[in-house]
Amino acid sequence: MARIAVVAGDGIGPEVVAQARKVLDAVLPGVQATEYDLGAARWHRTGEVLPDSVLTELAGHDAILLGAVGDPTVPPGVLERGLLLKLRFAFDQYVNLRPSRLWPGVAGPLGNVKPGEVDLVVVREGTEGLYAGAGGSLHRDTPAEVATEESLNTRHGVERVIRDAFARAGRRERRKVTLVHKTNVLTHAGSLWARAFDAVAAEHPDVDTEYQHVDAAAMFLVTQPQRYDVVVTDNLFGDILTDIAAAVTGGIGLAASGCINPEGAYPSMFEPVHGSAPDIAGQGVADPVAAVLSAALLLEQLGHAEAAARVNAAVAAELAGRTPGVPLRTAEVGDRLAAHAVS
Amino acid sequence: MARIAVVAGDGIGPEVVAQARKVLDAVLPGVQATEYDLGAARWHRTGEVLPDSVLTELAGHDAILLGAVGDPTVPPGVLERGLLLKLRFAFDQYVNLRPSRLWPGVAGPLGNVKPGEVDLVVVREGTEGLYAGAGGSLHRDTPAEVATEESLNTRHGVERVIRDAFARAGRRERRKVTLVHKTNVLTHAGSLWARAFDAVAAEHPDVDTEYQHVDAAAMFLVTQPQRYDVVVTDNLFGDILTDIAAAVTGGIGLAASGCINPEGAYPSMFEPVHGSAPDIAGQGVADPVAAVLSAALLLEQLGHAEAAARVNAAVAAELAGRTPGVPLRTAEVGDRLAAHAVS
Ligand SMILES: CC(C)[C@H](C(=O)O)[C@@H](O)C(=O)O
Ligand SMILES: CC(C)[C@H](C(=O)O)[C@@H](O)C(=O)O
Repeated sequence: MARIAVVAGDGIGPEVVAQARKVLDAVLPGVQATEYDLGAARWHRTGEVLPDSVLTELAGHDAILLGAVGDPTVPPGVLERGLLLKLRFAFDQYVNLRPSRLWPGVAGPLGNVKPGEVDLVVVREGTEGLYAGAGGSLHRDTPAEVATEESLNTRHGVERVIRDAFARAGRRERRKVTLVHKTNVLTHAGSLWARAFDAVAAEHPDVDTEYQHVDAAAMFLVTQPQRYDVVVTDNLFGDILTDIAAAVTGGIGLAASGCINPEGAYPSMFEPVHGSAPDIAGQGVADPVAAVLSAALLLEQLGHAEAAARVNAAVAAELAGRTPGVPLRTAEVGDRLAAHAVS
Repeated sequence: MARIAVVAGDGIGPEVVAQARKVLDAVLPGVQATEYDLGAARWHRTGEVLPDSVLTELAGHDAILLGAVGDPTVPPGVLERGLLLKLRFAFDQYVNLRPSRLWPGVAGPLGNVKPGEVDLVVVREGTEGLYAGAGGSLHRDTPAEVATEESLNTRHGVERVIRDAFARAGRRERRKVTLVHKTNVLTHAGSLWARAFDAVAAEHPDVDTEYQHVDAAAMFLVTQPQRYDVVVTDNLFGDILTDIAAAVTGGIGLAASGCINPEGAYPSMFEPVHGSAPDIAGQGVADPVAAVLSAALLLEQLGHAEAAARVNAAVAAELAGRTPGVPLRTAEVGDRLAAHAVS
């Protein structure tokens, strides 16, 4: 039976995670969930971000479901570096998976894009690049200050995430992978990415490929998001592109993500892309769809593809049935989704 | 009398630059233009990208007007690093200025944004960050390959571009500057940018300020581009954000840019954001508006604010008068713009 660690976190995190658990319990009865108290609240209370003992315990689970961590009073970087990125790196979650669909019933911001037309997934590298934490500064707070950030890219790290992208594309209908980088400026890393991409592409003659500079991709995600199937890119570019993809498909309120260690050597982590939204926390009005879709990714990763499909179908029905402007109640949405997923 | 170096370049470059010159000649009679043959064509013919002698000659001009350089047969990086970036760095063009307006008459892609509502300018740093060319690789073409790219940021470089952004904001109606970075992950460079921003902000109590992470800014540029006035950001973030800003305001076909050395110690360079568009080159159908708007930025930089305003008014009239779907003729648009600008 699947053993899930649950980090509900701060703000609306607990509210949306409760719905994701409802749905999980419905489609996978008997799932064992253990709650871990991590995030801004714990940091404020104890000064702890992620004690080693907790990291070890988390490692013993099949997957982690996370709500949202953070609030405006925590200094930037503390929870990001100390918790979220720490988990991605410690658990070698090198596939940061971010699907974007424009669901029927959802009013996207783009006038010329119809529901159902956008169905893409960004495979963002999760353990390298500018997120490596390599950098420093000299002469801080003087006119001579210099600060650096270094993007570290290995053939090992780049090739494995590209392989994952091609494998995913091979299972999809359009079978297309777009590499996004900035090879004309970041020539060293760009060349590594491009050569690894070409090598893996050569092993997948059945998959179409294209390359785009990140600035062009950012533009085309707005003007023609329909053109993308699987996008593979580095850590920072993926961070930016997935927020654009979320924006054009109805907002981060609907965007799910998985930080995946495909080999299963470590637990993968699943979380909505949205944050803790302190402004609406505690009111029971947060949309739990992103958290529930993240639970569907979790199910898929653990091999429960059929249960995942049922959750996705429930979300599709929920979104198609919404009337724009009518406020939602978090718990009611969760109830409907759970009921639909087992109906 | 203003001495302008003209680099028409490749593809549609010469076609659109010809219109920009028509307009310049109309509003600033007697402007002296010297043509320089640089770009893909020259590289193919001679192997030269930017001979030192040409760089020296360019330095003797008041400004450079560039069309577009490149074609798909030139390896990535050759013209970008050897020509465009070389000029930005050699001429210390640290303010990369990219205004975005949703002009009346232009159908933007966003359903809920009305013409006239978007009027923002991105002040992109132009001489530092990941564009410094600092990086390398080891064990190339082996499984052990590692490739790095380093973002270099100095207090000197960061503070001066932030100062420029505040100065611009002070001359605008809304007087607001948004700093975009990724302080929660790129903690060293992010901290430098944030501290320099706060220091300059303290000298401008009349200017409103806000901070956004780059992923959030990428999203808000799609969902709420109206909220921005002046955006200041680093070289790479600016590259990406300005393409999004262009996309939501009608595409890079309308986007102008200036690579500016505000002190005038070196010539500033003005160019449309679009590329050489080989697919439509030579047909006389390219839209010269971006090139003409770039010429307006040139006029402004050289102190001809009134002439610049007349060019902008001509563009406004041109765009307001267009019928969607009716093909345009490059030269006719140029004629109309030149005539309107002096009417
Ligand atoms: C919170 C932050 C560290 C994180 C990232 O940059 O990866 C977030 O933006 C995301 O996309 O998951
Ligand atoms: C061509 C390339 C070097 C350039 C850049 O990245 O700055 C372009 O994308 C731009 O935005 O002017």
